[in-house]
Amino acid sequence: MSNPPSIGRFISFEGTEGVGKTTAIEQLCVRLQAAGIDCLRTREPGGSPFAERLRKILLDPATDINDDTELLLMFAARCDHMQQVILPALQRGSWVICDRFTDSTIAYQGFARAHGDSVALTKIESLIEQFIPQLPELTLWLDLPVLEGMARAGKRSAADRFEQQATDFFNRVYAGFSALAAEHPERIQRIDASGTADEVSARIWQVVTTQFEMTNSQ
Amino acid sequence: MSNPPSIGRFISFEGTEGVGKTTAIEQLCVRLQAAGIDCLRTREPGGSPFAERLRKILLDPATDINDDTELLLMFAARCDHMQQVILPALQRGSWVICDRFTDSTIAYQGFARAHGDSVALTKIESLIEQFIPQLPELTLWLDLPVLEGMARAGKRSAADRFEQQATDFFNRVYAGFSALAAEHPERIQRIDASGTADEVSARIWQVVTTQFEMTNSQ
Repeated sequence: MSNPPSIGRFISFEGTEGVGKTTAIEQLCVRLQAAGIDCLRTREPGGSPFAERLRKILLDPATDINDDTELLLMFAARCDHMQQVILPALQRGSWVICDRFTDSTIAYQGFARAHGDSVALTKIESLIEQFIPQLPELTLWLDLPVLEGMARAGKRSAADRFEQQATDFFNRVYAGFSALAAEHPERIQRIDASGTADEVSARIWQVVTTQFEMTNSQ
Repeated sequence: MSNPPSIGRFISFEGTEGVGKTTAIEQLCVRLQAAGIDCLRTREPGGSPFAERLRKILLDPATDINDDTELLLMFAARCDHMQQVILPALQRGSWVICDRFTDSTIAYQGFARAHGDSVALTKIESLIEQFIPQLPELTLWLDLPVLEGMARAGKRSAADRFEQQATDFFNRVYAGFSALAAEHPERIQRIDASGTADEVSARIWQVVTTQFEMTNSQ
């Protein structure tokens, strides 16, 4: 990198369960750091101490709240995360790599939980517009068939509140990401998430270096 | 009451610190119950088990969050309170008497914390419109000079996070209630909160019986 950007880049990873976001983010950060770029890994919901406190509530299977309450808590967490972690990191020139962001809210709460109801989608869009001052410049949608992802996720750990939902729920989440990618082709890049972790990582690196006009040094 | 309403009434109490809301609500409920009316006393933030959990976070002096995060948490609590407690009570015919509601958010977060900034006020109005399906039919604004109320409140208990704010903050809260009362004369009734608790209670009973065309039996 001969000309590191004076301000950081904001990249989010999206996808249904088990598509390999965690590993892909790890490998992207390794490559970025090897290219001399400061890299902050974070996730949603959570990412700041206060938002992680709300994450615990949101993912706890014992939490019994209505959809609107869940949505508002999600944005309270996002708002804290943005102000406390994401914006300061970008301002000091770090790249921020975030595991899920606003697209997950649209896909999970809007398309899946609310079945794409236009009132629910309008609420989410209005919360984004009013409370989230900065969206990712690049969103990498790891695309894998829902059942394949669920099989991978099932092997990993005890199911949390979202993972317990039925397959048709995840099919609606998938449809949500697909619709978002069609709506925002300038921001959202589809990544084929099949194959080995190294193969996926190479596909991601290709997209990132092209998007940000970096020398493809790795 | 010869003709109890088939559906409950929703009444909120508003005012700056120490104006006597708690006592006034107690006495109104006693009078309503004596008139044969089921009466549910509740408060904000809080009022449902989940919202009370958020109330603890909101009022904890150790909670260090930005204004937008606070606002979203406040509405998450309100949304749960509305769905879990207020709407079910109204549907079974109870009257709901709520210590603070949306006007407090506009006065405290909009007028006081955000100094009446139009962007902040628009955010609050949009949250109300999109997430709060029912506003009070009657709001009783207990009006007392700010310093007199603060002196009363100071005697009562250790100051919480909001009570620690300086006097000019409460002057802006007062200005907020005053502006709201002027804007919504059909809903908000100003109650002179000076004098004894019994005097205030009699003034409130006069307004309530007139508004809801009740026989003034007490």
